[in-house]
Amino acid sequence: MTQLVPIKMITIIALDSLQNRLILDLKNCGISGYTISEVEGEGLYEQHFTDWEGRNIRIETLVSAEEKVVGIMEMLNQNYFEKYGVIAFVTTIEVLRKDHFD
Amino acid sequence: MTQLVPIKMITIIALDSLQNRLILDLKNCGISGYTISEVEGEGLYEQHFTDWEGRNIRIETLVSAEEKVVGIMEMLNQNYFEKYGVIAFVTTIEVLRKDHFD
Amino acid sequence: MTQLVPIKMITIIALDSLQNRLILDLKNCGISGYTISEVEGEGLYEQHFTDWEGRNIRIETLVSAEEKVVGIMEMLNQNYFEKYGVIAFVTTIEVLRKDHFD
Repeated sequence: MTQLVPIKMITIIALDSLQNRLILDLKNCGISGYTISEVEGEGLYEQHFTDWEGRNIRIETLVSAEEKVVGIMEMLNQNYFEKYGVIAFVTTIEVLRKDHFD
Repeated sequence: MTQLVPIKMITIIALDSLQNRLILDLKNCGISGYTISEVEGEGLYEQHFTDWEGRNIRIETLVSAEEKVVGIMEMLNQNYFEKYGVIAFVTTIEVLRKDHFD
Repeated sequence: MTQLVPIKMITIIALDSLQNRLILDLKNCGISGYTISEVEGEGLYEQHFTDWEGRNIRIETLVSAEEKVVGIMEMLNQNYFEKYGVIAFVTTIEVLRKDHFD
């Protein structure tokens, strides 16, 4: 029988110049995979409308261990949120029980 | 201690020709930021499979005030849903308490 | 009065070479629309870091009938997960009651 179990997706919006550094820091937090896509926008930095320089990226990674989610959000908070205006949020999603994302 | 609090993300799928008008209407509803990415697809208009002309866009904006979410969905309903086949949906996400998206 | 009702969004991450086949299988499961966007990443196949060949895609489709969600996840599980390292997950979203996605 198909059974869905909840895990977390962390989404990060950042200037694309931060990509390599963010991926390295995420790997050090124990992620096992991610996707990156290009986005444009306004309001990233300081949550006000500003002109963005360069391209921006959205990084998404699936994490099943709750403590890993907290560890990643704390790492982002310490290193990226205020200094670089990075935005991150957590979405609860469901996967088949057979999948493992840690 | 890291504490996550729920807010809302509104996602809008629309023909890219509507971009400027949608962004203006969203700003008038009080949003403080958004991202845009390009998508392709079928089934936008009338929720049936049709050929799309032009590029399509996905707009995402984070909103913490519940009444603002309702205001944006009502604005989209009145001005875009039936006339332009725009699709919009709301996702509950979690951010660090320190963030403010209104 | 604006009333939001929960439905499901299924997100699929796959090699872009699977696009036509995935869309066909999803249509056979009864979806009425979808969007596709390009993504890059690591960790798709076997959930380990590997080099991806070619472009990768993210397919998203909105489904309101619970049994259709299960049917799609079972189809993906049987035909794609182990063989092709495809990732899929389900997100609960909210739409206006007036919308119909089946």
